[in-house]
Amino acid sequence: MARRDFLLTPGPVNVPRRVALAESQEILYHRGEEFSELLQRVDAKLKQVFRTQNTILYFAASGTGAMEACIANLLNTKDEVIVVEGGKFGQRWRELCQAFGVHHHVIQIEWGRAVHPEQIAHALDAHPKASAVFTQLSETSTGTVYDIEKIAQITNERDVLLVVDAISGLGVVPCEPDKWGIDCVVAASQKSLMVPPGLAFVSVSARAWQRAERSDLPKYYWDFQMSKKNLYFTPFTPAISLVMALDEALNIILEEGLDNLIARTELYAQATRAAVHAMNLKLFSERPGPVCTAVHVPQGLNGKEILETLRRDFQIKISGGQDHLKGKILRIGHIGDVGAKDVLGTLAALELVLHKVGHKFELGAGVRAALHICAKKEALCAHS
Amino acid sequence: MARRDFLLTPGPVNVPRRVALAESQEILYHRGEEFSELLQRVDAKLKQVFRTQNTILYFAASGTGAMEACIANLLNTKDEVIVVEGGKFGQRWRELCQAFGVHHHVIQIEWGRAVHPEQIAHALDAHPKASAVFTQLSETSTGTVYDIEKIAQITNERDVLLVVDAISGLGVVPCEPDKWGIDCVVAASQKSLMVPPGLAFVSVSARAWQRAERSDLPKYYWDFQMSKKNLYFTPFTPAISLVMALDEALNIILEEGLDNLIARTELYAQATRAAVHAMNLKLFSERPGPVCTAVHVPQGLNGKEILETLRRDFQIKISGGQDHLKGKILRIGHIGDVGAKDVLGTLAALELVLHKVGHKFELGAGVRAALHICAKKEALCAHS
Repeated sequence: MARRDFLLTPGPVNVPRRVALAESQEILYHRGEEFSELLQRVDAKLKQVFRTQNTILYFAASGTGAMEACIANLLNTKDEVIVVEGGKFGQRWRELCQAFGVHHHVIQIEWGRAVHPEQIAHALDAHPKASAVFTQLSETSTGTVYDIEKIAQITNERDVLLVVDAISGLGVVPCEPDKWGIDCVVAASQKSLMVPPGLAFVSVSARAWQRAERSDLPKYYWDFQMSKKNLYFTPFTPAISLVMALDEALNIILEEGLDNLIARTELYAQATRAAVHAMNLKLFSERPGPVCTAVHVPQGLNGKEILETLRRDFQIKISGGQDHLKGKILRIGHIGDVGAKDVLGTLAALELVLHKVGHKFELGAGVRAALHICAKKEALCAHS
Repeated sequence: MARRDFLLTPGPVNVPRRVALAESQEILYHRGEEFSELLQRVDAKLKQVFRTQNTILYFAASGTGAMEACIANLLNTKDEVIVVEGGKFGQRWRELCQAFGVHHHVIQIEWGRAVHPEQIAHALDAHPKASAVFTQLSETSTGTVYDIEKIAQITNERDVLLVVDAISGLGVVPCEPDKWGIDCVVAASQKSLMVPPGLAFVSVSARAWQRAERSDLPKYYWDFQMSKKNLYFTPFTPAISLVMALDEALNIILEEGLDNLIARTELYAQATRAAVHAMNLKLFSERPGPVCTAVHVPQGLNGKEILETLRRDFQIKISGGQDHLKGKILRIGHIGDVGAKDVLGTLAALELVLHKVGHKFELGAGVRAALHICAKKEALCAHS
């Protein structure tokens, strides 16, 4: 049963074999010192990737669980909040507020556009009772990166809580929770951390802890206070094999260095953007980031057919669009266990597929454009 | 970094290498047909272990998450419920009701005792508005099995929902959701399913679906309806590697046959009970089951020292007590990847440790008693 799809989706990603083997080690008992020592070791390394000294809480869950944890722990029934909705994951913040009956004001952004920090300022002016802003670092559904540094300036000036879903962005989109003042950063294992899905994280600032102390929304599994009391053990049975995997994945990331990982992934994204232009494709996002490059499916072509041909003929799995963008965009991921040859090989394969389905462009132009970008930073390419 | 503790705790358990290797396969993309086919294959096999035709929902979470899902999906703010609290996990049902503001009546059972089905009948008589009963199949903290068949008769006569935490019991304690009429059975991956922790399950009867449709408690990650709409995909990123592991673990279980697994684990528990009697130890539970055997730490001995010596000298990890039972009981697990030689070897090692710390008993009497039990069912021992 050989499963060989090479994943170039914006998550889950290819898991390095070192990580997969760490995952398959003998299970540790989670109430013993050895597990606690493992989690402390993991935590020290994960804090370097989060770039925070804030407490990080661990949940056996996928990213959405940690998003729900933020809503349930940071808010009161009477709170008002601002939600940025510029894609599938902004929508998720909105739906979570709805599910928990939280009074929320939505900044609606056309999918593919970035929120302008001034929009946050205006929303907070219009709703002075709003006590928190929920947004994304990278909106995975559109490949768009938001300017969290500027947004944090605005929320900090007003003592408003800033909660950032960095599920796909962590580790590849520059993010400085402590320097910029982000109260909570949500992340998950199956993105640039290169671990299978099932582990989610939230970093919690001092201000966020104060809010958590007076929150009255119902919670149990997601309870921040219970997590804090059981720090380095977790209150409920943790996803032990995924924590073992994360330990090794963080070794790989820190051996390379986070700055290098960020620069290298940015290079892949730049090379891909240059390539898709040269292939006569149009970028979907107005502020594209390093997680994935979203492009319009050219008029008259069948998006599903492109995806399926790439998979069948080249064993490459890239993503399509979600919801109303199904069949309308392609999303080429740049995160996980990916090297320069994989990026270039995928662009070459995409050229062949587009050529086959009759898209008009100069065959070879895409890879050539990517190579010119790569040639300027050969050391980065070589590193991978 | 050799981690070789042999786990004889009531979970997490030893994971067979076949399962660990399945877990470490290449990650499948969770929105593709291949993942959905995997989950359908897993589901057909898991239904054989659950012995139900009801829908099974899958959550990336540990068991407590699935317990919370039952509370959040099956109840209304105005509902009254009955909770059986005879240990740490009955307490969890109570705490979940408290967290969600659900009006609940607790049947308090001394830890180590089993609830008498008549107590359920009396509670339902006393609280005729109660619409659901929450209990355990096997109360892991005390090693006690409840008579769910009789309890189900009582709840069915009154059209009351029965929700059973079978997290440690599934697969080794006989349980017939469809025959007996259990509305929801909660389970998790890291017990007799022999998979690392991080996957939780709930089976949902037709009556439970009706309740779920009119439930008004806040939920999102745990939402049964969303899970139903995304059956065989799951609404949020699933714990893919654990699902791959479960696929192989279920192969192993069904190759042996569930009846045989139940009988074999019961044999291990019987042999252990005979051994501990012969070793001049006292059982803690009045209705001990096959998940784990709980025994009192003899007066004057140090429970922690016994656990640590077993681990240090013999690389065997058994559990102590939880909460007020810390240091007072030992819990010897019988589930997971365990054979007769492991059970007998552990009893022998325990004899040596007890002998060393000065406990009074005839050295060899424990294993001899266990052997006499095993000799009556040699075929079962041989099978493992």
